[in-house]
Amino acid sequence: MRAVDLIRRKRDSGELTPEEIHQLIAAYTHGDVPDYQMSAWLMAVVLRGMNRAETAALTEAMLHSGQVLDFSDIFGHKVDKHSTGGVGDKTSLVIAPIVAAGGLKVPMISGRGLGHSGGTLDKLESIPGFNVNLSLVEFRRILETCGCSLIGQTAEIAPADKKMYALRDVTGTVENPSLICASIMSKKLAEGIDALVLDVKTGSGAFMKKLDDAVNLAELLVETGKRMGKKVVALLTDMNQPLGRTAGNAMEIAESIDVLAGAGPADLRELCLELAAWMFFLGERVKTVEEGKKLSMDLITSGMAREKFREIVALQGGDVAVVDDPRQLVHARQTLDIVATENGYVGAIQCEQLGTAGVVLGGGREKKEDKIDPAVGLVFHKRIGDGVQRGEPLCTLHYNSDARLSEAKLLAESAYRIEPEKPNALPSLIYQTIGA
Amino acid sequence: MRAVDLIRRKRDSGELTPEEIHQLIAAYTHGDVPDYQMSAWLMAVVLRGMNRAETAALTEAMLHSGQVLDFSDIFGHKVDKHSTGGVGDKTSLVIAPIVAAGGLKVPMISGRGLGHSGGTLDKLESIPGFNVNLSLVEFRRILETCGCSLIGQTAEIAPADKKMYALRDVTGTVENPSLICASIMSKKLAEGIDALVLDVKTGSGAFMKKLDDAVNLAELLVETGKRMGKKVVALLTDMNQPLGRTAGNAMEIAESIDVLAGAGPADLRELCLELAAWMFFLGERVKTVEEGKKLSMDLITSGMAREKFREIVALQGGDVAVVDDPRQLVHARQTLDIVATENGYVGAIQCEQLGTAGVVLGGGREKKEDKIDPAVGLVFHKRIGDGVQRGEPLCTLHYNSDARLSEAKLLAESAYRIEPEKPNALPSLIYQTIGA
Repeated sequence: MRAVDLIRRKRDSGELTPEEIHQLIAAYTHGDVPDYQMSAWLMAVVLRGMNRAETAALTEAMLHSGQVLDFSDIFGHKVDKHSTGGVGDKTSLVIAPIVAAGGLKVPMISGRGLGHSGGTLDKLESIPGFNVNLSLVEFRRILETCGCSLIGQTAEIAPADKKMYALRDVTGTVENPSLICASIMSKKLAEGIDALVLDVKTGSGAFMKKLDDAVNLAELLVETGKRMGKKVVALLTDMNQPLGRTAGNAMEIAESIDVLAGAGPADLRELCLELAAWMFFLGERVKTVEEGKKLSMDLITSGMAREKFREIVALQGGDVAVVDDPRQLVHARQTLDIVATENGYVGAIQCEQLGTAGVVLGGGREKKEDKIDPAVGLVFHKRIGDGVQRGEPLCTLHYNSDARLSEAKLLAESAYRIEPEKPNALPSLIYQTIGA
Repeated sequence: MRAVDLIRRKRDSGELTPEEIHQLIAAYTHGDVPDYQMSAWLMAVVLRGMNRAETAALTEAMLHSGQVLDFSDIFGHKVDKHSTGGVGDKTSLVIAPIVAAGGLKVPMISGRGLGHSGGTLDKLESIPGFNVNLSLVEFRRILETCGCSLIGQTAEIAPADKKMYALRDVTGTVENPSLICASIMSKKLAEGIDALVLDVKTGSGAFMKKLDDAVNLAELLVETGKRMGKKVVALLTDMNQPLGRTAGNAMEIAESIDVLAGAGPADLRELCLELAAWMFFLGERVKTVEEGKKLSMDLITSGMAREKFREIVALQGGDVAVVDDPRQLVHARQTLDIVATENGYVGAIQCEQLGTAGVVLGGGREKKEDKIDPAVGLVFHKRIGDGVQRGEPLCTLHYNSDARLSEAKLLAESAYRIEPEKPNALPSLIYQTIGA
């Protein structure tokens, strides 16, 4: 294999064989193919595309660039969930304990905040002491002990993805469904799971703004997972407005504990129940998704799900006092209401802007090295279709420094479109299920 | 400027401003933009294209990445010629001395063999002692002394091109007219010339196989040169068969001396007269191209052109004995005739294969580090339209080692298509003149 020949073939819209893709990825992981050849190839892929066989081969090559975990000696089906990311999307924090409480195993390797969207690891770290940087040995031990552990990607897991992701970020080669699919699935399949539920978000706060693009990605993800012998289902869900009532690391922990305690906002609760139900179904714990939903509700009502969360926090070194009383989580010192400037109805929300406002306040990173402020964030008061009076708060910024407050304020203010008439249709929570 | 933003813009078919292009090239030359970003940008350029303003800006940025020579204090117009390369293309060796003998200055910075095509520097080095690695100070001194000097690219000239060319070669980003144009013109315009004649080759032995592509490149080269205030003309010339009777470094020196002595094959002689005539015309030595042609012939007939070549060889340390008696140049020890396998006419020639056969015999490089054998090469006996008898030689391989002889033989044999009927039309030597 000469890397330049593979680059030229893809540049000219040709197809690569699985062997060629495996050789390219292996050589890149070992440093035999340099970054400058990989980035030229990635750009050719972005502009020429890859077919499904190539996408599957790339996923497999990236998966096998590192260690593939084997939990087959641990009793029970292993299932996980992955979301493509959005604003206020905290479902992992709710469903991982529900599903573990229901008897399945959830070995969850998560990510950090990316762009305007939050990350499970950042949220967990707002719990004092919570350690997401466990070794794979500790990960296995906790999974065995309590059925669930939540950690970050280690050096052993899909190193090709780690290297390629960093390269894609700085070479304009992020936006391609095949590359996105291979990146997600290589990490998830390395977890040693039997089944995976995907939450593919679409709308103004998602990476895939258009439903068509999201459907396309969802189909690719499902097909790629099935080719590798996994049970996979993708739910296409709405991200035209924030999920739940908060976006901000500590705030989202508190909101998740609310849901685990049987309260919390309806949309977040409903989506969590649906996702958990699919995990129970694919993990063969129940015979129907409906049954899975009922089981999930029972695990909340009985307090078992919340107790499981407490157990995970304890095992990963976190302070369980905040689980018992979420008010003990860090709070921002100041707040600022973003108010409606006219009477009417919320017609649309530029949801990505709300996410970016949170980043600007310090809740996310603009550069890899940035330190996060876990206390800051946004509380949302109005959803699409809600009536508003002039002067009534649409959302509230929680902040510690007013250095970039005006920037965040501007972003949040201009995110809401107020219309004189109530919109005819509200966005559905779940648009479609793929792969069922 | 963030390099990733410029990469993304080009990826999405956007246009870059001249300032952005200048910043990108300057940052790359200084190592502030890494190879992996440049290669992603180059691939985006190959697949999305650049408009003429962008191409001119890129050329200018690469030109000013290094030293731009200024020979304005040396009397006389400075002119040069550049060929896009082919098989048996040795016109530089003939016309540089003709034009210098006619009173113009020819500061010629040339290249080495590339792929199947030969290079002026490699040919000159088959003259014992000839030094192409002169400093810019020596280059100027010889130019002043005798009106012409022929050297290789130095570290001072267009360093951005040197760096980008090496990168393009290994990242599948060679084949793009804008990048080819910027590479050629940035080096040529750094020579401090007033006028440039371009020989853009098309056909089976050229890099541009199709006439349309060659016309497109020629127009781009001419327009870019004119934007920078230079007189530029491009001749579109045939490369469907080798130029002249030989391809091989020492052989081509001998054939060039033949033409300078008033002999040599008609096609080579004719093209040299035409190119030299244009140089005289653009250099304001004559009032018409026709007059330039007559002047060129006179300089050959009078022996002045050959004498000028002898002077250049002497000044650059070469052995003038080979100019006086080309039989003293190195010869290969063995020959092998490639014969026709049937009666008929030469209908077509896969000219690139003949060039590659010469490389395989050791006359060119397959890797940058390869050492060249100046003695080997091919002598061509039949041109398109010539009648052949079965068993009659089409060409002869001159070689020193039979290690890869069978490979070269196969390439040469399969390069000739013999047809029962004489072809209706023969390829023209010159198709078109652009920019006149």
